[in-house]
Parts: sequence; C-alpha cells; structure tokens
Amino acid sequence: MTKHNFFAGPAVLDRSVMDQAASAVGTFDDMGLSILEISHRSKQFVAVMEEAEALVRELLNLSDDYAVLFLTGGASSQFFMVPMNILASGDTAGYVDTGTWSTKAIKEAKLYGNIEVLASSKEDGFNHIPKPDVPDHLRYLHITSNNTIYGTQYKGFPNTSVPIVADMSSDIFNRPIDDISKFGVIYAGAQKNLGPAGTTLVIVRKDLLGKVDRQIPTMLNYETHIAKNSSFNTPPVFPIYVCMLSLRWLKANGGLKVMQAKNDAKAKVLYDEIDRNSLFAGVAATEDRSNMNVTFTINNADLEGKFLDFVTEHDIMGLKGHRSVGGFRASIYNALKTESVHHLVSLMKEFESMHA
Amino acid sequence: MTKHNFFAGPAVLDRSVMDQAASAVGTFDDMGLSILEISHRSKQFVAVMEEAEALVRELLNLSDDYAVLFLTGGASSQFFMVPMNILASGDTAGYVDTGTWSTKAIKEAKLYGNIEVLASSKEDGFNHIPKPDVPDHLRYLHITSNNTIYGTQYKGFPNTSVPIVADMSSDIFNRPIDDISKFGVIYAGAQKNLGPAGTTLVIVRKDLLGKVDRQIPTMLNYETHIAKNSSFNTPPVFPIYVCMLSLRWLKANGGLKVMQAKNDAKAKVLYDEIDRNSLFAGVAATEDRSNMNVTFTINNADLEGKFLDFVTEHDIMGLKGHRSVGGFRASIYNALKTESVHHLVSLMKEFESMHA
Repeated sequence: MTKHNFFAGPAVLDRSVMDQAASAVGTFDDMGLSILEISHRSKQFVAVMEEAEALVRELLNLSDDYAVLFLTGGASSQFFMVPMNILASGDTAGYVDTGTWSTKAIKEAKLYGNIEVLASSKEDGFNHIPKPDVPDHLRYLHITSNNTIYGTQYKGFPNTSVPIVADMSSDIFNRPIDDISKFGVIYAGAQKNLGPAGTTLVIVRKDLLGKVDRQIPTMLNYETHIAKNSSFNTPPVFPIYVCMLSLRWLKANGGLKVMQAKNDAKAKVLYDEIDRNSLFAGVAATEDRSNMNVTFTINNADLEGKFLDFVTEHDIMGLKGHRSVGGFRASIYNALKTESVHHLVSLMKEFESMHA
Repeated sequence: MTKHNFFAGPAVLDRSVMDQAASAVGTFDDMGLSILEISHRSKQFVAVMEEAEALVRELLNLSDDYAVLFLTGGASSQFFMVPMNILASGDTAGYVDTGTWSTKAIKEAKLYGNIEVLASSKEDGFNHIPKPDVPDHLRYLHITSNNTIYGTQYKGFPNTSVPIVADMSSDIFNRPIDDISKFGVIYAGAQKNLGPAGTTLVIVRKDLLGKVDRQIPTMLNYETHIAKNSSFNTPPVFPIYVCMLSLRWLKANGGLKVMQAKNDAKAKVLYDEIDRNSLFAGVAATEDRSNMNVTFTINNADLEGKFLDFVTEHDIMGLKGHRSVGGFRASIYNALKTESVHHLVSLMKEFESMHA
C-alpha cells in the first residue's frame, strides 16, 4: 500500500525517518525508555538538540554570528516575535506582500513599528513575486521565500544591504543559500520541508538583538532561548528529534546542492506536463514557479472533481488546491520521491486521453 | 529490560499509549501514511482533536462555559498569556508564591497589571503551601496546584469567589476537581501528567475574555484559538494525538476518582517508608505533601551519591532531586506503576540495612 503524499503540510518525510522515529517511540537509544518519556535534560536528548543545531549550521554554512533555535508556535508566532524583538517603535521595516502568509506577517508587525509594504501582487491573485527597490533606511526587509498557496517562489533573493527576514516555512533546505550573510532572520515551521508539526526553526543574526526598549515577556525574547540552547523551558522533544533525523537524512543524501537538483528535476517533470497537457494550466507566473508547491487548474470546471477522484483512486493524497486558489496543488517537498511525480504525470496523461 | 521511570517531566506514560503512538508513527488509521505526515485539516486528525477535547471535558466535567485548547509554548507561555488576555492594565491579580514556577508567573504578570503576592513560603524553602485570605477585589487568584521541585500540593483549593487561575502542569488529571466552577483558567504543559512534551492544555472560562483593551498579537489571543478549535495555525499534531491516547487510557482505567485512589495509595507507600526509614526524611510539610512528586533527603551527605548509584543499578531513572532542593525526588505520575514504587521502597529498605 504505497501512498503518494502531496499534502501541503504537515507533509511527506522520508520513510527511513519515520521508521527510526517509530522505533524511538518504542525504545530510544540505550535508555530502555520511549523518547516520549525522557527528560529534556538527559544527556541523550541534549545530544539530539546539539546534533540538530550542528546539522542546520553545516547545511546552511552558518557562522557563529547566527543563533539556531528550535521554538514552538509556528511561523505564525514569528510574525510578531520578529518585530517585537528587532523593530523599535520608531523604526521602519519593509514587507513584500506575496500572499496569505505575508499579509498575516504585515498585520502582526504593525503592532510594533512603521511598516512599509514595498510591493504586493494581490491585484494579480498573488500569481507572481514582485521585485521592488529596497530603500536603505529599513531596519529589515521581510519576504516569504515560497508561497505555499499560490505556488510562487523567490528564485534569487533581493539585492540589498538591508538585513532580510525570510519566512522559509515551505522551502527551507530545498536548495543552498548562496549568501547567507544577507539574512537577519530565517524562520520556518518544521512541518513542510523539515519535520513533523510541533517545532519552528528560527535562525537569528545575534547583532540585531537587544536594540529595542519595549518589555518582552521572557518566553518571547530570542535572547532567552539563545542563552539556554532552546531549553529555557521544556522543548518539544519528539518533534525536534524527528527534525534531527530528517536533517541527517538530508546530509546523508548529498546535502542541499543535490537536493536542489532533485527538486528542480521533479518540478520540471511536472511543469512540463502541465504546459504540454491540453487539459491543464499553471497558476504561477513562469519565472516565479515554485519547486515545492506546484499549482495548476483544469480547463473544464466539470472535470475538476473527476480528476481529484481519479488520482485519489490511484493512491495520490492531498492534491486539492487551497480554497482561495482552487484547482490543484502538488506539494513536492524534499522527501517526495521522483516516482510520485512520474505517477502523477502518467495519471494526467491518462486523464487527458480520457477527456481531451 | 524494565526501567522504572521517576523523571519529573517529560515523564512516564503508560506502555499501551507508547505502543499505539509508535504504531501511528509507522502507519496511522487507514490512511497508509504516518501520523507525522498527514494534514492537520484531514478528517482523521480533526477527529483526534475533537476526541481529545471531549475527553478533557468529560474527565473534568466541564460545561460549555469553558473552552478547551491545545496550544504550544508550555506553561511558561501561559505565565504571560493569562494576564495579557484577562488582566486590564488597571486591574489587580493575586498570586500565591509556592516556588520557582509561581515566582516566574509573578514576574511575567507584572508586565500587564497590578500584582499582589498574597503569601509566599520562600523563607521556608517553599516547604509548604501558605493559605492566605483572598481579597474580593482581585481579577483572579493565581496558584500553582502542585510544585514539582519542592513536592508540595494544594490538597483543597482556596475558598473564594475570585476566579482561580491554576498552573496544574504537574498534577492535572491526578484527581477529580470537585467544584470546577471556581476556576477561571487551568493550564498545564502536557509533559508531566498528560502526554509528551510539545503541547499545553489551556482551559478558559470564556466570559473572562474580551475585557482588556490592549492589542494582543493574533497567536497570543485565546479568542483566536477558541474560534478555530486550536487549529488557527498548524497544531502540534503528534503530541496532541498522544495526549488523546493518554486521556483514553485514563478513562478506560476508571477516570479521575480511580486515579486519585491509586495515586494516593502509591504516595502513601512511599511517604510511609520515608517516615519509617532511619536514613531518609521528607522535605515537604506533611499536610501539603504532593502525591505526584515526593521529595526526600538522606541524613548523611556521603550517602546521597551512593544511594543514587544504588537505585540506578537497579533500573530506577530520574530520582535525583532538583538542584535547588537537592536530595531525591520520586515523580510518581498517573502512569507510574505501583510496582515501581514498591521497587523503590524495597531498595530504600535494603540500603538502610546496608548503611544504618
């Protein structure tokens, strides 16, 4: 019973990761206990946390200027934690509005400082990534590197001396980042391209901190978690453990360059078929097409439900598009196998021969 | 290889819960996927969330006046979320200081309103629960129902018309709550007596909300999560699933009355031995002794490490006391088997015969 998991998140992880995770829920390490019942202060879990951090540093080539944190609350909590921690009330930050998640980030940031929305593709249904000039006076520039709902993605990052804050929830670790020093903060809910739901990776350039004078609750202050290696309070032990397994898998499979090549190849197979097939059309502007979330529609509304039923009968899960876009969304994260994309493409061809 | 898990948290869960959890990480339900890779919007996970909430309601006999939420951020995040949501800046709240966690809750609350510390047992090393009069003008009274570090516990709850806000992280579901309507908010990090680390149970009386005029970030507003059944953003799917399994186990094993009888019996066996044994002495005042965390010391400092080594050789884990108290702490949560307590007691007797 092989299912092809195209869910947008929580999403597919490699089977080897799941098997190791299941085993650790049974008995972890040599402890004779489940990983669910061990102290976060045990040397065994401290080693997990350290390895997870080290793998993030290695894969992204991070210097000691950056802290690596595993927090909770999702990217949605970073929408306010970023400005709360680094935007003083008189400061201005720039935001690029590329969809639902950017819009939410903008809303929360307005509680803390001046927010300039530099550009938005809202009028075009968020079908592309606008590339505005970035004024130098900004404290930071916030972008959403990949837009899960609309299927758009930054192919290169803005050329600016302003620190970039990036919500990378849906494409973290999908490719190398050439110039990591451009970034002030990178954050990502784990449950799309990194691990299971329940933890949020936050990477912060430490020199940005300590410059606001508002009172920040202890748990919302990045400095709290930096000082305590993400264990000021009890961290989400098992979600972090599975992220670590997933990072190990990423490294063992060649790291980010190899992953990017695989991801681009998988995406090309699918976009080529969307462009070739007389029934389907892509949603996102060609130059901004995501290699993580592929959005497409069918040219006959009567066939939409039929196509979903057809692929579901053939073991494909999670292909329904987000309600705000409609159509279909194939989320093809790192752990989705090339075979799953080929399977979908063959079903698209078969459906065309039945209905074109 | 049976280990006896006395960790203070994350802590022991029943083996049947762990086995089901491990199985679901392999394949969940009839989906052909791991529970780690399924959408939180899937009908299968929505059913898990609904069952978890229903079990909390049933076990605690909660009316519709209360919302039941599964959030993240631990009890440490409730330290500020409670006052942020229900304490207007001119309001006063009363706190009873019974140890480290109360002290932290007081610190965070001061960011939002007037805080009166009604009583503290700090001068006595937090070895008892002070029982102050509760003035009527308070917006709420905050208590820590069980103090993991010191081993003290409220045996009855304060008699007051002021809504009680209780941090029940380390004794939630250890006993029935006779008059639940006394409570305004109950919160508990899952990882002591409910489930694995990664989610926080928050029970809120809804009429307390919407009465502060400060701007609250969306993710920190209880009303956000009430409106979306704890799924405004991606919830911690697996930790909530394991909590649900643990709640099922609690119900199947007779519910809270039966659990209290077992817990009290386990605690009695251990306290009786501490009082009888010439080597050991209890830390907490007799009338406030916790039935969840049993703290005790040894009357010869040279023997402390030896006793820890001795029990460790006999498969007991997590007995070392918190560094601020020293000595030993036996955490004997719901899922710890009576046999484990008997095993510890027999080792205490044996150690006495070796060293007394």
